Amino acid sequence: MKIAIDAMGGDNAPQAIIAGVQRARDEFDDTTFLVFGDEAQIKPLLTDNTRIEIHHTTEVITGEDEPVKSIRRKKQASMVLAAQAVKDGTADAFFSCGNTGAVLASGIFIVGRIKQIARPGLMPTLPTINTDDGFNLLDAGANASSKAEYLYQYGRMGGFYAEDVRGIKNPRIGLLNNGTEYDKGDDIHKEAYQLLKADKAINFIGNVEATNILNGPADVVVTDGFTGNAVLKTIEGTASAMMHILKHNLLESGLKVKIGAGLSKNAFKKVQAKFDTARYGGAVLIGVKAPVVKAHGASDERSVYYAMKQIHEMVAKKTVAKVITYFSSSKTDSK
Amino acid sequence: MKIAIDAMGGDNAPQAIIAGVQRARDEFDDTTFLVFGDEAQIKPLLTDNTRIEIHHTTEVITGEDEPVKSIRRKKQASMVLAAQAVKDGTADAFFSCGNTGAVLASGIFIVGRIKQIARPGLMPTLPTINTDDGFNLLDAGANASSKAEYLYQYGRMGGFYAEDVRGIKNPRIGLLNNGTEYDKGDDIHKEAYQLLKADKAINFIGNVEATNILNGPADVVVTDGFTGNAVLKTIEGTASAMMHILKHNLLESGLKVKIGAGLSKNAFKKVQAKFDTARYGGAVLIGVKAPVVKAHGASDERSVYYAMKQIHEMVAKKTVAKVITYFSSSKTDSK
Repeated sequence: MKIAIDAMGGDNAPQAIIAGVQRARDEFDDTTFLVFGDEAQIKPLLTDNTRIEIHHTTEVITGEDEPVKSIRRKKQASMVLAAQAVKDGTADAFFSCGNTGAVLASGIFIVGRIKQIARPGLMPTLPTINTDDGFNLLDAGANASSKAEYLYQYGRMGGFYAEDVRGIKNPRIGLLNNGTEYDKGDDIHKEAYQLLKADKAINFIGNVEATNILNGPADVVVTDGFTGNAVLKTIEGTASAMMHILKHNLLESGLKVKIGAGLSKNAFKKVQAKFDTARYGGAVLIGVKAPVVKAHGASDERSVYYAMKQIHEMVAKKTVAKVITYFSSSKTDSK
Repeated sequence: MKIAIDAMGGDNAPQAIIAGVQRARDEFDDTTFLVFGDEAQIKPLLTDNTRIEIHHTTEVITGEDEPVKSIRRKKQASMVLAAQAVKDGTADAFFSCGNTGAVLASGIFIVGRIKQIARPGLMPTLPTINTDDGFNLLDAGANASSKAEYLYQYGRMGGFYAEDVRGIKNPRIGLLNNGTEYDKGDDIHKEAYQLLKADKAINFIGNVEATNILNGPADVVVTDGFTGNAVLKTIEGTASAMMHILKHNLLESGLKVKIGAGLSKNAFKKVQAKFDTARYGGAVLIGVKAPVVKAHGASDERSVYYAMKQIHEMVAKKTVAKVITYFSSSKTDSK
């Protein structure tokens, strides 16, 4: 198994990426890591180059680059060449912590969309409060405009992922909507409900509301990319705001509270651990011809390691092949 | 000034409603409160009936009732008759803690939409973490489907409210989008951006993202009703999940942490106070011919009191009249 890695994307590149890759290399002895980036920076970071191949690159796509233009213009960028290795059949999967839009564009235009999938979707795994299972949200923002059919395909693809990679038997698929009744939402959501419901091979549980998705009513939450993006960002923003207020109030408060805060530090750490979703891996661009995983720009060694583990699982379980087989044999055919 | 009150809606009706109304009555001596509901239940709750008129009603719209049908069928319901009092000119404003859909339907079909407003929007005031100002989010779910023009009108109406009722000079209007660049989002959001930007009379600051709306980048956050509903529910759900995890971890932890938690209780209370938005009043259905305010179903006496204060302010400042005047004189004309 070979994983192509963009070593130059993200805030902590290439250090965190090389550290995470080395940790994964030590664990997965069936895997070779093709690391794309500046050899002068990468080489000194390698403590052991077993099954790590450096592919020297001269360009980098930054966070400020316009996604689609940059992957066309910067042909020698680490991200572009790593994606190209998958297209060429040299690698089985592609990973980056870089510019989200450019990773999506690399996945869709270089690795390539699966013919029968109308629009690949971005799928992170988010935490659930009472279990360690988490849930998948898709599309979290690959597409600003949606059709009912895209949402139906997200449900189907999310189901394959939840079952294969997360090991959830007969995963519950929910449709994010503005009420639980079947006739809620705009026309797209009403139609998506009917498409999901009509597919007897999936465990569609109906509409779910954003109020309780963190309680885990569904293993896969299907949404259009515009709403999904807003929901994902609202979860991040609200969690971060609450931690901020709590810390601020503890510091501003008198000594008694400060002592209390010091003592209850462990509980705070657990809350942060719950909202630290690194252990679930990165967000998968699902609907392209190979595993494409985008981890957070601020990823550390641990996040990169978990993303490698996640990719290893997807390649070993042939999740993408299952998606292709399913959609090739079903009547669905998209342009 | 006269306020028509549905005394029978919400989990704590009629007790909390009557208690909140009596507190407001003691404060606002220019106001008479027309209380619609079951006289037998209401009368014993009144410690003083000065400027409180009971209008006995025999029907109640419940949380399970289908909104539009119920306001047509239950013509003697407290909610319907309170809204009717505004339509008849007997009252200046309408308040309910009942079935959200039915309150929206009562506002739109009984109180009546302002002719030039395409779609009234539901507008709560939400907390901001570093100030006590809060911000308005609209549409938070009155409409599942949207057009760019609706969003433009939300910006304009939200601005009048933020300035008049919340006292914010030249309020900053932001458009919730999936990125800050002007060309982000689907066609509706791209067009709404241009409409808002073209109106030189408002302080449009461009796109804002859900990640940081609680930091208060805008005083008014404009969004389509489907996304706005999901964002509002995600804020509520995430805040509640975090408090749950924190409490759970404190209880599960050892004695040391428990002592710490006891000592830092005040800080927790402050966090809860921050996310308790009762002091901002209820959600306003803006775009109808009179102030219509919907408070949370779980509202207590305090929430009802603050909603009365908010309505008093809207009536005194003639906020709705300003909206009507503006849209009557502008070129905008909706069907």
